[in-house]
Amino acid sequence: MNISAAQVKIFYIITFLVIMNSNAQSLEGYDLWLGYSKIEDPVILPEYQRHTKSIFFNNGSAVLETAQKELVRGIDGLLGQPSNIHNSQSLLNTMWVSKKMDLDKDIVKPFKADFEQIGKEGFIIKSITVNDNSILLITANEDIGILYGVFKLLQLMKMHKSFEGINIVDVPKIELRMLNHWDNLDRTVERGYAGFSLWNWQKLPEYIDPRYEDYARANASIGINATVLTNVNANSLVLTSAYLDKVAALAEVFRPYGIKVYLTARFSAPIEIGGLNTADPLDKDVIEWWNDRAKKIYKIIPDFGGFLVKANSEGQPGPQNYGRTHVDGANMLANALRPFNGMVIWRAFVYSELDTTDRAKQAFTEFVPYDGNFLDNVLVQVKNGPIDFQPREPFHPTFGAMPNTPLVMEFQITQEYLGFSSHLVFLPKLYEEVLDAETYRKGKKSTVAQVIDGSLFNSKISGMAGVANIGTDLNWTGHPFAQANWYGFGRLAWNPYLSSEAIAEEWLRLTYSNNSEFVEPVKSIMISSREAVVNYMTPLGLHHLMDTGHHYGPGPWVSDLSRPEWNPTYYHQADKDGIGFDRTPSGSNATSQYSSEIAEIFNAPETCPEEYLLWFHHLPWDYKLKNGEILWDAVALKYQEGVDQVGEMISIWKQAKTYISDDQYNEVRMLLEIQLKEAKWWRNACLLYFQTFSGKKLPPGVELPEENLEFYRSLKFPYAPGN
Amino acid sequence: MNISAAQVKIFYIITFLVIMNSNAQSLEGYDLWLGYSKIEDPVILPEYQRHTKSIFFNNGSAVLETAQKELVRGIDGLLGQPSNIHNSQSLLNTMWVSKKMDLDKDIVKPFKADFEQIGKEGFIIKSITVNDNSILLITANEDIGILYGVFKLLQLMKMHKSFEGINIVDVPKIELRMLNHWDNLDRTVERGYAGFSLWNWQKLPEYIDPRYEDYARANASIGINATVLTNVNANSLVLTSAYLDKVAALAEVFRPYGIKVYLTARFSAPIEIGGLNTADPLDKDVIEWWNDRAKKIYKIIPDFGGFLVKANSEGQPGPQNYGRTHVDGANMLANALRPFNGMVIWRAFVYSELDTTDRAKQAFTEFVPYDGNFLDNVLVQVKNGPIDFQPREPFHPTFGAMPNTPLVMEFQITQEYLGFSSHLVFLPKLYEEVLDAETYRKGKKSTVAQVIDGSLFNSKISGMAGVANIGTDLNWTGHPFAQANWYGFGRLAWNPYLSSEAIAEEWLRLTYSNNSEFVEPVKSIMISSREAVVNYMTPLGLHHLMDTGHHYGPGPWVSDLSRPEWNPTYYHQADKDGIGFDRTPSGSNATSQYSSEIAEIFNAPETCPEEYLLWFHHLPWDYKLKNGEILWDAVALKYQEGVDQVGEMISIWKQAKTYISDDQYNEVRMLLEIQLKEAKWWRNACLLYFQTFSGKKLPPGVELPEENLEFYRSLKFPYAPGN
Repeated sequence: MNISAAQVKIFYIITFLVIMNSNAQSLEGYDLWLGYSKIEDPVILPEYQRHTKSIFFNNGSAVLETAQKELVRGIDGLLGQPSNIHNSQSLLNTMWVSKKMDLDKDIVKPFKADFEQIGKEGFIIKSITVNDNSILLITANEDIGILYGVFKLLQLMKMHKSFEGINIVDVPKIELRMLNHWDNLDRTVERGYAGFSLWNWQKLPEYIDPRYEDYARANASIGINATVLTNVNANSLVLTSAYLDKVAALAEVFRPYGIKVYLTARFSAPIEIGGLNTADPLDKDVIEWWNDRAKKIYKIIPDFGGFLVKANSEGQPGPQNYGRTHVDGANMLANALRPFNGMVIWRAFVYSELDTTDRAKQAFTEFVPYDGNFLDNVLVQVKNGPIDFQPREPFHPTFGAMPNTPLVMEFQITQEYLGFSSHLVFLPKLYEEVLDAETYRKGKKSTVAQVIDGSLFNSKISGMAGVANIGTDLNWTGHPFAQANWYGFGRLAWNPYLSSEAIAEEWLRLTYSNNSEFVEPVKSIMISSREAVVNYMTPLGLHHLMDTGHHYGPGPWVSDLSRPEWNPTYYHQADKDGIGFDRTPSGSNATSQYSSEIAEIFNAPETCPEEYLLWFHHLPWDYKLKNGEILWDAVALKYQEGVDQVGEMISIWKQAKTYISDDQYNEVRMLLEIQLKEAKWWRNACLLYFQTFSGKKLPPGVELPEENLEFYRSLKFPYAPGN
Repeated sequence: MNISAAQVKIFYIITFLVIMNSNAQSLEGYDLWLGYSKIEDPVILPEYQRHTKSIFFNNGSAVLETAQKELVRGIDGLLGQPSNIHNSQSLLNTMWVSKKMDLDKDIVKPFKADFEQIGKEGFIIKSITVNDNSILLITANEDIGILYGVFKLLQLMKMHKSFEGINIVDVPKIELRMLNHWDNLDRTVERGYAGFSLWNWQKLPEYIDPRYEDYARANASIGINATVLTNVNANSLVLTSAYLDKVAALAEVFRPYGIKVYLTARFSAPIEIGGLNTADPLDKDVIEWWNDRAKKIYKIIPDFGGFLVKANSEGQPGPQNYGRTHVDGANMLANALRPFNGMVIWRAFVYSELDTTDRAKQAFTEFVPYDGNFLDNVLVQVKNGPIDFQPREPFHPTFGAMPNTPLVMEFQITQEYLGFSSHLVFLPKLYEEVLDAETYRKGKKSTVAQVIDGSLFNSKISGMAGVANIGTDLNWTGHPFAQANWYGFGRLAWNPYLSSEAIAEEWLRLTYSNNSEFVEPVKSIMISSREAVVNYMTPLGLHHLMDTGHHYGPGPWVSDLSRPEWNPTYYHQADKDGIGFDRTPSGSNATSQYSSEIAEIFNAPETCPEEYLLWFHHLPWDYKLKNGEILWDAVALKYQEGVDQVGEMISIWKQAKTYISDDQYNEVRMLLEIQLKEAKWWRNACLLYFQTFSGKKLPPGVELPEENLEFYRSLKFPYAPGN
């Protein structure tokens, strides 16, 4: 072969690569943030080549094998050449991947404190010098730390970060970092907008869909270590032997990625599959049945995580059916799981049609008195706000109010009430707002994040749960940018003090491009997207305005549902005199559930942050806001602002076209068009409806609705997904 | 760059390719039979390089653009280099792709007869010599022929066929080659076992999932030119404007691939979405409503194909609700569609609980008298057998009995009654058996294929429909080998005289490997698979033994369903004296619906093919078969044979391991294990049950069931898919 022939061949092969890539276009997005294409940057590439010249990987367990497999996959892809991995150490190594116990004591000594800090799950990535050789060290106390360290290393490489003088000591601040799948056994997903359930129960346990492992990889790469496979509106059948075998097969796939499997436990299971005539948690037979069932489960799945329970909520059975309390129910299950180190996660999402007080108050009222009464393997899971995953809610007053109970934060990642998988809404911005909120429960600097990570009250265990947005769609989440919500949830569960902006940047660089001409403007789309959805759906503290059942689109007029607190009219209280829910002492007094410092701020319309104004106050239509606008105009202008923000997102996205593939561009462009259409729909429907009370004209700058109110009221969506 | 550096780089790049490939492993199967990886064969590669050196592609329409895109994609992938395409002709061209009208008259003259033969959809691939230059010519009369020719060319290349002296003149023998999707608007798929519906109605029309185009490509590559998007158990809503806009968006994606969109029309739509109080086909308002609806549809979708209708069958509304006939109903719709050249495809799958005659006779009885009464844009669609997609049925007696009505063959591709997507069952073997069946309606050589392709009775139009097995699974069909059923259906719709063995070979080579060490043994698995499923489910003419509703697994004992003909006991008629359904003149006389030549053969147990024995005869348990076995022993041994055949399939597959990727191997191996488990389940359940009548021991060679009959009767599958 002469030089030019070789060059020609290289040209062909490179072309071929491009073609391969174009052949795979339809599968854009399957790789999530884990695509490993070759790094072309001429500065960083030689550095990476130097560091990876000879890698010592100290193997020895299933998790470590996984870590090595991931490292090889990543390095091979990023450097475009097969990685040089050795399972025995040599002087020529340029990288060491090894647990502390397998390292030379002299190497370890200088950073003993780091090892103490990283605990079981943390890792260290450090540039060290041994016998004048510069070595990149990835180390940890336990196998899982090595896996997390490897994923971090690859993320750094994807972002072209230099390893010179690197010294990362990282450890998750929250113990249980879990996804909640609201997946039914028929593979429909309640509030699922990305296709259907990944779990193919029919073919399990024999058939292991390759996607199960890809799911585990993605989760492990962002530190998620627990997954609840089934819907909180639970089905007892999943606790029968036939299904437990299937669950065990999934657990086996997830185990090498450090992920434990949990199930939802239907409280009436002893009746439904146990043949008993009661599920009373104090009944001997019931107790025995659950003890026995726990034994069965742990025999098949020795590292089973535990149960997530929705009890006495929205029709689910629970201990109250037998005159018992949440504590009775949770502790009974906790006793059954305790011999096996299993956890009970008991949801505090409760409200009752029999309770005539403000729905926003009920969970607090019901649970706070139980503080300290739960066994120590019980965690109470609380939604971020006191109603239900609205575009904006003040933080749930229970956070900080149960110092002796570990509280799990429940965020939603799926976008119920938030445009489903058609709208680009970057949720870490919402998570951040909640986590950063001050509870004042131990003075200033008592944030929700400090409650959640256990630092405020020195909790023994901590957890954060996200209602998954994952389904069978090729790109997992329906909207490509919904991947960022999965990613961001994982990152914040690892470290609830991260900024949403940093997360957006990380995700964009890992997923699309390191080019700042792309990253910066698109990051601005992400950051503004959450405020946009608040504006075009529920501005100024409005909430729960959606249509019934499917929760798709606006339905502020709905007032005829059997349970009063299911009606939007219950929440906005619009009438000729004004709009909003009075939750101050003159109203429901829900503010009293917050610390006095917070309550005081919320109680006065003048001090209440305007984004919560109508959440806490019923105000006249001509009430003057800080900027001088009257309330009606402000509401209308906020709706318009939301629509305009989506328009702006589209303009920015069009600028991004040149930096990504046509398919990547078009996919988001099409979805943004849906978002714009639906933002206008929300604006038009809500303003026309509220106008029937305010009797005022739309202020200048607000576009006139294309249709009349009757049109918007007439729309029906019998097959909207996720219902 | 010196030589060795270049070589090293090439090595790296090649390695990279391998890695790219391994990164994509989880997506194995998405490409179907259309993967274009580089040809490594040292003999054929230079020939292809020579032929593709300079390609003249005569462009000019959307379909031709598609054809060029496909050609580029294929050639680039197969040759590993960018193809050299010119849209203007030159002396240097080595390949011409051009319609007849754009070719020089002197070129065309010598094969004028070929052009006459290929009609609208056919194509010619021919090696010709022009001015001493050897040119590979792909030509056709119409755009669509060019597209089909391009796909054929690429298929030949994938199979390493030489182009020397090539002279292919190919044309589809059947006009409507259509898929029937039993997809519901909520994305569940009736009898769907490959996930859920591809049609994301929620995001249509704005969001075009890239899979829609990939779906169209796959269909066009095998000649499918029509798709019915919705379930025959129909929902009127799809005929409303909101949905028609969505349908139009799909039609737009499919159009450049030569595929027309059809919908199912619910007969009561004028009531449900039209606000009328009747759907009587002779009512003026009803007629006007359908005429008007047709206009609406064609305004949005100018090339809309037409309606598929299931009427007065299994609870679907129809003309009989108003005392009218199938002819009244079909012709009313045909009149509405006729101005736009639309078709009505009226299903003959009817049977009634009020009709006490043998269900197998009812469709024939009801439809044959209408022969000649339908308008000429009506086709009647008949299932392959007289019951319902059983593992084996004799051909439907209606084929050949309606000489004045074009009959569409309805095959199922999805595997209801055939192990769902867990069992490897190569259905073209079944299709072939039906198509090759002699009807004797115009003497010998009057096969079902000749009825279907219109040649026997000189029909004006012809059609073949397949109930699709396509869903959201990454590999489209759940079981990788179920792709072969989609492929094979398309091939037989193009040419119903192809052999199933040739199709199996084609598909294996296009999908997996050209290596005959792989192809030959795996082909033997495919070819034997259909007889295996007959043996382990319903041997010797038994049928309809499945469990209720989901049709998953055996339920021969079921006898308590409200409609007698829904019970398996109705079909097997087992009692102490024997087993089987007497359809001879001494019984239901269903044989009289066949031509006398066929009836005579079926009527006598001695001449009746043993594979149909218990379909047509009730025989004593000790009836002697041709091989001397008594009936009970023969039934038992057939069940065992089915199980053994699956065992053999597994042994052969294990030998194939070295020729394919680990993922490709493991996927099928896991599924074969399910098939083996379920084959045993069928054997055990059926034999234990029939044994309660025969009172005889299992003959030597038949394995004893692991569980007792009560166990098998107790199994419940509330979430089996496709229900």
